[in-house]
Amino acid sequence: MRPSHRTPAQLRPVEIIRHYTKYAEGAVLIACGDTRILCTASVDENVPPFLRGKGQGWLTAEYGMLPRSTGERMKREAANGKQSGRTMEIQRLIGRALRSVVDLTKLGERTIQIDCDVIQADGGTRTASITGAFVALHDAVDNLLRRQVISATPIFSHVAAVSVGIFEGIPVLDLDYLEDSSCDTDMNVVMTGDLGMVEMQGTAEGAPFSRENLDAMVDLAQQGIRELIQIQKKALAAG
Amino acid sequence: MRPSHRTPAQLRPVEIIRHYTKYAEGAVLIACGDTRILCTASVDENVPPFLRGKGQGWLTAEYGMLPRSTGERMKREAANGKQSGRTMEIQRLIGRALRSVVDLTKLGERTIQIDCDVIQADGGTRTASITGAFVALHDAVDNLLRRQVISATPIFSHVAAVSVGIFEGIPVLDLDYLEDSSCDTDMNVVMTGDLGMVEMQGTAEGAPFSRENLDAMVDLAQQGIRELIQIQKKALAAG
Amino acid sequence: MRPSHRTPAQLRPVEIIRHYTKYAEGAVLIACGDTRILCTASVDENVPPFLRGKGQGWLTAEYGMLPRSTGERMKREAANGKQSGRTMEIQRLIGRALRSVVDLTKLGERTIQIDCDVIQADGGTRTASITGAFVALHDAVDNLLRRQVISATPIFSHVAAVSVGIFEGIPVLDLDYLEDSSCDTDMNVVMTGDLGMVEMQGTAEGAPFSRENLDAMVDLAQQGIRELIQIQKKALAAG
Amino acid sequence: MRPSHRTPAQLRPVEIIRHYTKYAEGAVLIACGDTRILCTASVDENVPPFLRGKGQGWLTAEYGMLPRSTGERMKREAANGKQSGRTMEIQRLIGRALRSVVDLTKLGERTIQIDCDVIQADGGTRTASITGAFVALHDAVDNLLRRQVISATPIFSHVAAVSVGIFEGIPVLDLDYLEDSSCDTDMNVVMTGDLGMVEMQGTAEGAPFSRENLDAMVDLAQQGIRELIQIQKKALAAG
Amino acid sequence: MRPSHRTPAQLRPVEIIRHYTKYAEGAVLIACGDTRILCTASVDENVPPFLRGKGQGWLTAEYGMLPRSTGERMKREAANGKQSGRTMEIQRLIGRALRSVVDLTKLGERTIQIDCDVIQADGGTRTASITGAFVALHDAVDNLLRRQVISATPIFSHVAAVSVGIFEGIPVLDLDYLEDSSCDTDMNVVMTGDLGMVEMQGTAEGAPFSRENLDAMVDLAQQGIRELIQIQKKALAAG
Amino acid sequence: MRPSHRTPAQLRPVEIIRHYTKYAEGAVLIACGDTRILCTASVDENVPPFLRGKGQGWLTAEYGMLPRSTGERMKREAANGKQSGRTMEIQRLIGRALRSVVDLTKLGERTIQIDCDVIQADGGTRTASITGAFVALHDAVDNLLRRQVISATPIFSHVAAVSVGIFEGIPVLDLDYLEDSSCDTDMNVVMTGDLGMVEMQGTAEGAPFSRENLDAMVDLAQQGIRELIQIQKKALAAG
Repeated sequence: MRPSHRTPAQLRPVEIIRHYTKYAEGAVLIACGDTRILCTASVDENVPPFLRGKGQGWLTAEYGMLPRSTGERMKREAANGKQSGRTMEIQRLIGRALRSVVDLTKLGERTIQIDCDVIQADGGTRTASITGAFVALHDAVDNLLRRQVISATPIFSHVAAVSVGIFEGIPVLDLDYLEDSSCDTDMNVVMTGDLGMVEMQGTAEGAPFSRENLDAMVDLAQQGIRELIQIQKKALAAG
Repeated sequence: MRPSHRTPAQLRPVEIIRHYTKYAEGAVLIACGDTRILCTASVDENVPPFLRGKGQGWLTAEYGMLPRSTGERMKREAANGKQSGRTMEIQRLIGRALRSVVDLTKLGERTIQIDCDVIQADGGTRTASITGAFVALHDAVDNLLRRQVISATPIFSHVAAVSVGIFEGIPVLDLDYLEDSSCDTDMNVVMTGDLGMVEMQGTAEGAPFSRENLDAMVDLAQQGIRELIQIQKKALAAG
Repeated sequence: MRPSHRTPAQLRPVEIIRHYTKYAEGAVLIACGDTRILCTASVDENVPPFLRGKGQGWLTAEYGMLPRSTGERMKREAANGKQSGRTMEIQRLIGRALRSVVDLTKLGERTIQIDCDVIQADGGTRTASITGAFVALHDAVDNLLRRQVISATPIFSHVAAVSVGIFEGIPVLDLDYLEDSSCDTDMNVVMTGDLGMVEMQGTAEGAPFSRENLDAMVDLAQQGIRELIQIQKKALAAG
Repeated sequence: MRPSHRTPAQLRPVEIIRHYTKYAEGAVLIACGDTRILCTASVDENVPPFLRGKGQGWLTAEYGMLPRSTGERMKREAANGKQSGRTMEIQRLIGRALRSVVDLTKLGERTIQIDCDVIQADGGTRTASITGAFVALHDAVDNLLRRQVISATPIFSHVAAVSVGIFEGIPVLDLDYLEDSSCDTDMNVVMTGDLGMVEMQGTAEGAPFSRENLDAMVDLAQQGIRELIQIQKKALAAG
Repeated sequence: MRPSHRTPAQLRPVEIIRHYTKYAEGAVLIACGDTRILCTASVDENVPPFLRGKGQGWLTAEYGMLPRSTGERMKREAANGKQSGRTMEIQRLIGRALRSVVDLTKLGERTIQIDCDVIQADGGTRTASITGAFVALHDAVDNLLRRQVISATPIFSHVAAVSVGIFEGIPVLDLDYLEDSSCDTDMNVVMTGDLGMVEMQGTAEGAPFSRENLDAMVDLAQQGIRELIQIQKKALAAG
Repeated sequence: MRPSHRTPAQLRPVEIIRHYTKYAEGAVLIACGDTRILCTASVDENVPPFLRGKGQGWLTAEYGMLPRSTGERMKREAANGKQSGRTMEIQRLIGRALRSVVDLTKLGERTIQIDCDVIQADGGTRTASITGAFVALHDAVDNLLRRQVISATPIFSHVAAVSVGIFEGIPVLDLDYLEDSSCDTDMNVVMTGDLGMVEMQGTAEGAPFSRENLDAMVDLAQQGIRELIQIQKKALAAG
């Protein structure tokens, strides 16, 4: 029995609120159960130095947790003077995941800057960040299309992410904090709209996992991401 | 005429949502017009080294802006590796303001850590932070009382803050961003429950201000803070 | 009775030594009682990136304390790897205060960099910095005029600053360290040559201050700044 | 055809030199083709603060690249003042991988510090680091056993790692730099002595990868790690 | 002919002002020509962690230049967030030089912290720092003796320093900035009261220097330091 | 008797391995006894900002120690976020030493970046770095000549370095760690191919050193450097 009384293949309730703040070209609040993340997409009419004059754009992501988004207050990274390894790892993952569905040559010489800020954390913040940031990205691209800054969308597929794991011996979908902190294996999977895999990061926290576990987890991830993409589509259609 | 069509002495609509997140002992979302700030109060059962063994507590504050809380995206301070001078100045002000109504000897050897994170900025973030953080602080102290960690409240008054200024020659209350960025004088005032002044910081952005202007601004601030304290009381009474 | 046996409205003796060091375009040592600060104004033929090509100049300030300018040695900020919040707050104040009397469009595309370094601290270092730095700025501008780099002075008024406070219930002018560390209220006031207010920063260290206190403190500040501006004028006249 | 003329399932030649430097308790140079990494294991008779008094040990890892270990010189991280996100990600991975085969309660209150420094990089530095560091760890533990600091080994399995990928549409084992920089998918797999999976990190650099690709890559990884563990055993047997 | 019209073996005028500021246990302003440095010695009743409980004291030094102590304004190291390599090199030298004449076991478990801050730089700041700091150290030790904190002085000799060099082919003593910036060789020499050498750092800025040059420079240094020690003695005798 | 049983004037065995790694234009492993350092010379087709457009090149050096190159593991400077004063001092010395034999105007507007990374430290790492880096520099220049990037070599002499010291009262050549950590005086000497002195840095760790000691140490250094230059020549001749 999962602490949340969900079935093994059951996602937490997902809510996607677009236009959550008023300035960003894309501004999405995504809630996956008690995990709540503000994902914004900002358009910057510059590219990093290594891309100047190459006729293509860039997309990059940053991630942060509000100090008391967690059960114990975390130190504020800005006050500490550096981002933790975990933060850097997550923001690199978010950037790669979103770039996997964007044709940067169609973006022109501009950067889309994704910011994922965790308001409340209850497990799965990196995967919810990707799922929510895709919708913010979509809104930012729509803004560019609407303003006729670009003439064709550089986005060629959806991308969403979910965690899967082995909790008390059972493969389960979408771990919350209680599960995550005591599971044997935790795997984050990122897939595109046609369920092609773009990232898979699995870690055995306790016992190693078997080939059979792997297969079961990938099955669950496919199903979960299929649902998440439907939710993204519904949110975007609501426009 | 103010850009927002308010009268000179009119506050923006204020909303205070308590228990906005689930982990912090106090967690308040304050909205003053389009300015929205999450203020949390966290109890830490330690004091900084300079107070160890002195039988008293401490209260300190940190402040941050989400990168896209503003019209132009700001650089993330955690990625920059340091907090700006403006950030430091504001968080020092918030800390002093709240300490002015707390008897630290009644808190015991523990720290209350205030975090004010700006979700959306439309002027007056430092004053709204103080007004909201007071409510979060109150909730955190109630939590300590309820859990019988302390037996008497260390809070002996309310504290709230507001900005006043000279906009197009007229003294006005509670400047929004449009007013703030073109006013001649901007003054932040912090007062306690009986309207004693604890902080007053006025800056002439354009022409110097006269003694007469000062008097008019302090009058407006008193009135505004009287209203804000009523709003705090109502929010706290709602329990 | 003030610890220094001064009357409530009595400034400490002020001495302004121009040309204190040989390289800077303006180099002033200001002594206010035992507070001694070296204020230099350096001309840099560049402007910060945000002003390039805008046909105007800039003025900025930095502040530092020598490690043993105080009773207890302070850690060297350069060794610590960062400036404290207090330092940043003060240098921002000095910059704003001086810019309030300079027409930056008349300066041309160059920067005047003010450095205020505290040799010995006995209270009032931020206000003495402003009063001294104005004289250094004046000398630097005279240097530009003399070398015909600019044809008209961008300085259109004097600016000086003083602290006032409530010490043992009495409003007093120009607090020294002994007073400052035990006063109820400490207020720093910056005024221009015709006593227009450009900055007012008051903090209740102990009990809140009343409207009446505020009025008395502003009265004292006006009188003190009037005297300080006379002292600046005399120093500048001495050639 | 692979640029190195290897068959898809062929590892590069692996060489493990123990006792490569004289001070460290374990000091291994591992060469996988042209990738050469110095892996040391140092015993520190302390544990980090969060483990003090808990009766268990710790193992942590750091990773670095010599500036000219690569085709283009990289900036020295020590001179830059911070480790890159990639470095942090890799050293966290190495630490987790090695901890997965160590019973920290049998280590006593001490830390084994792993350092993996890349002398020459030709792809696969993170996986070679893990494979080499295991041998260094083994030597350090033997040192503790020999000196009777601990009475039973805390190591309960081997651990080794390899990369697999899809290069020009074909699943291949152990990518070198030429392959790595143009492959579609790159996956790093860490397994224990009985081929249980402890880490799997796959990234689609180009097109997403299919379930079929995943299966083929895991097959190759199993085979490669089986070989690597034999090489570790042979190196350790050599005394 | 030297730019300053001095003879090759002629020191610049040296002035040592004791008790230059009021807080430090030792506070000396040393002027060597136009080079002016404030040297303070502060007593700290702690030792660094590596010496705790070892029954001995410590002496360490820090060095800084005021931003406009030089012809061109230098960036403030505190604002830059780090000390330059040159600064670190100099402060390490000052510390070693002074420790060479102090018996740290007689100091007790306390630290003497030397601060050398350059008010105006005209060549020879590191050597003048050592010569001046010795006098400040002496005053700080006298303070400890007078307060009966220690019963015997830990200082067993004088220490002073001077630069020598080859300027336009001629060995000269005590280079000023004009000489220093165009000389072929620059050597800093530190000697004790009986002219034993404790540091010698020579650098050929242009052509290498010969054995003969070396001998001539050491001769000049001995003579210069003999004079400097007389000046130190006279200053200390003045009480 | 020296701990290593060498005679006072005897160098440790020196080995210079060229082309030690495959990417750098110059890549030398130098072993002086148990001290082993990888010295690379990398060509960068840029110059630092202060030299742009001046028609000359630059040479700069960085130095680092692998964390377990020493008996006790040292903290990794990249993880600490800064280079130590010792590191900065050494890398500045290496850069100056090599620049003393290079005509930068003949190098064209490019930089040669030297990296000296200590694999194993047993005393004399800074001098071995210079001796080894010269060979790497020579190889990098040969590479530029061979590729006809430059037409004439900018190198006009050899440069090598050695330490000398007073160990148990006897002047000795080439101190190893055991000697270095207990000697009275330690001096590093850098000379060019015709034994002109370019750097001499002597420190009395214990008793001051006499003029006679200095003479004896310089004699030893000349002899040692003469041998080292022969070893450099032989290594370079070997092709």
